[in-house]
Amino acid sequence: MTPARLTSFTDGVVAIIITIMVLELPVPKAAGMAALQPLSVLFAAYALSFVKVGIYWSQHHNILQASKRVNGQVLLANLFFLFWLSLIPFVVRWVGEAGITRDTVLAFGVIMLLCTLSFALLLSALLKANDEDAPIVRAARRGRKGQITILAYLLAIAVTFFWPYAAVAIFVAVAFMWLVPDKRFEEFIE
Amino acid sequence: MTPARLTSFTDGVVAIIITIMVLELPVPKAAGMAALQPLSVLFAAYALSFVKVGIYWSQHHNILQASKRVNGQVLLANLFFLFWLSLIPFVVRWVGEAGITRDTVLAFGVIMLLCTLSFALLLSALLKANDEDAPIVRAARRGRKGQITILAYLLAIAVTFFWPYAAVAIFVAVAFMWLVPDKRFEEFIE
Amino acid sequence: MTPARLTSFTDGVVAIIITIMVLELPVPKAAGMAALQPLSVLFAAYALSFVKVGIYWSQHHNILQASKRVNGQVLLANLFFLFWLSLIPFVVRWVGEAGITRDTVLAFGVIMLLCTLSFALLLSALLKANDEDAPIVRAARRGRKGQITILAYLLAIAVTFFWPYAAVAIFVAVAFMWLVPDKRFEEFIE
Amino acid sequence: MTPARLTSFTDGVVAIIITIMVLELPVPKAAGMAALQPLSVLFAAYALSFVKVGIYWSQHHNILQASKRVNGQVLLANLFFLFWLSLIPFVVRWVGEAGITRDTVLAFGVIMLLCTLSFALLLSALLKANDEDAPIVRAARRGRKGQITILAYLLAIAVTFFWPYAAVAIFVAVAFMWLVPDKRFEEFIE
Repeated sequence: MTPARLTSFTDGVVAIIITIMVLELPVPKAAGMAALQPLSVLFAAYALSFVKVGIYWSQHHNILQASKRVNGQVLLANLFFLFWLSLIPFVVRWVGEAGITRDTVLAFGVIMLLCTLSFALLLSALLKANDEDAPIVRAARRGRKGQITILAYLLAIAVTFFWPYAAVAIFVAVAFMWLVPDKRFEEFIE
Repeated sequence: MTPARLTSFTDGVVAIIITIMVLELPVPKAAGMAALQPLSVLFAAYALSFVKVGIYWSQHHNILQASKRVNGQVLLANLFFLFWLSLIPFVVRWVGEAGITRDTVLAFGVIMLLCTLSFALLLSALLKANDEDAPIVRAARRGRKGQITILAYLLAIAVTFFWPYAAVAIFVAVAFMWLVPDKRFEEFIE
Repeated sequence: MTPARLTSFTDGVVAIIITIMVLELPVPKAAGMAALQPLSVLFAAYALSFVKVGIYWSQHHNILQASKRVNGQVLLANLFFLFWLSLIPFVVRWVGEAGITRDTVLAFGVIMLLCTLSFALLLSALLKANDEDAPIVRAARRGRKGQITILAYLLAIAVTFFWPYAAVAIFVAVAFMWLVPDKRFEEFIE
Repeated sequence: MTPARLTSFTDGVVAIIITIMVLELPVPKAAGMAALQPLSVLFAAYALSFVKVGIYWSQHHNILQASKRVNGQVLLANLFFLFWLSLIPFVVRWVGEAGITRDTVLAFGVIMLLCTLSFALLLSALLKANDEDAPIVRAARRGRKGQITILAYLLAIAVTFFWPYAAVAIFVAVAFMWLVPDKRFEEFIE
């Protein structure tokens, strides 16, 4: 099986996930800029959710472009990953609405960790489905970003119990790390 | 006609169906974990709906990858299948909200049966549209999962009138049966 | 330009249009079948809207598969068509909720007519963009379904002022006419 | 990397953005045409938002069809552009509901400007990712529409502080300018 349809389905699901929150932004009836004030938290949460989901989409794009074949296990691993990804807007919005507290940041951290772990599962299913000389196998040998992210998220979850703001700082730092384009895959796809 | 566009349209529709319920999860205003409690039923229903629709998508992916040609009847059969598929989140949520009772499980069972029957109709339209030596024709000769599913659903619907929980057990068993990747199609697509 | 992306964008928009109404079906809190009663009108309206939009998608699929090239005018004509198509769920639901009256059927008829006219505009833009020997040019020479539809809709709109139910009968008859798969395009696409 | 998946993801997101407002049109319970009256502003806002987003999609289609390669920076620039694009329905609806005032038109103008600037950023990332002789590089050398748009939007934003209606006139004029199909890209894509 080729990855063509896996990616087109994933693109549809991620397109919905990334725009869910904008669907729910309530339009103010009043005309003054002051009417946008109560929405500022929702706007910030939407932007954060957009960045997080956008980064995952870029990574998904990279590992699939480097793959030549998929199989039934890859399909299931991909669905498993999409399930956790679809909960990101929910937890981001909960943090945005209920504030940075132990429980909201904890929920956010657990979902982020599950997204990363299920993405690692998807990557490992793809490695098994592809031959030794597929670009993905060569590319995946390099780079430690995945492991760093899992460790950072575990640390953030532990830190949340004492100091939720420090956990948020860790999440932001990880996001910035991923925003740097991943040359590793670009090279091997050429 | 090639199946390219049929699959891209189906992917769009299934992407919406699979994420409909997450669009409706209400975000709690309170910060404590206790605020997530009332959502637990919705979460479970969302997960179940995701699994059911995800399995159908994987099967659709398999039979279309094994097809070389589609025609007008396949387009209509596909639309008919998508219509019943789009009602899965509705009945899953009804079971989730109103509980496991005769009527809710019955509605769920009827929709599941209609999904399976319309999927069989789509498969048969695809077999007619393809030549004798297309992978789908060879692959479809093997495997009994489809027939087992229809029989199991008919049984579950009958059982619902006496003992709805037993029917639920049958539905869960069928889902597990389908979660095992379908080697049959993988082999023939290669 | 090739039609690849035009179709992928259209598929996304039509996927949303065709599932909009299922997004809005309210799930009953009560468990008995009686709780589904108030939804029957919405269900019927959803099914009708699904059929109407599904038929347009099939036709769109046919004329685009028979096209080799698109240009800027085709892109605009396609957007114009999608705009009117997106209003079908709205008018169908209005008929469903407010009943078969002069004004609701009139609104439905006007939107259906605008969909058909804008589809004809899209077809004519495609004919201009393609060479004489493209399949679409040869296929479009045959068949009168388009003209019959426009005349039938004009008639239905006139009839609505006196007898809305007769207009509904005309709309149903036109839908059945289109449900017969369109061999004309299938032949030329091969 | 090829642009195939970038466009399929973008198509999904834009399909949602362009139909968000139709998802929210409330269906009247009453049957008379008068019941549609209160919706007229929403309809007009929906049409305007559809045109604006549709024009951006056409432009995106053109510059991507003329590109042979994308890279990590293009992916990020594309996400950045989609983020601002997703806010168009929100500001259009705010203008529609709260009226043409300094603050609403200002918000609209700022989002339009950010869309145009992020689109220019995307174009520049594409130019860098493609070789000297790619169609996009030759096509982008001609045409001043982009610069005219940025200047017109800056002017409109300044004018809004004194006379919001004049700013609206500028926005409408720019939309018309873009509705003229862009021959420049068509030529080079052939």
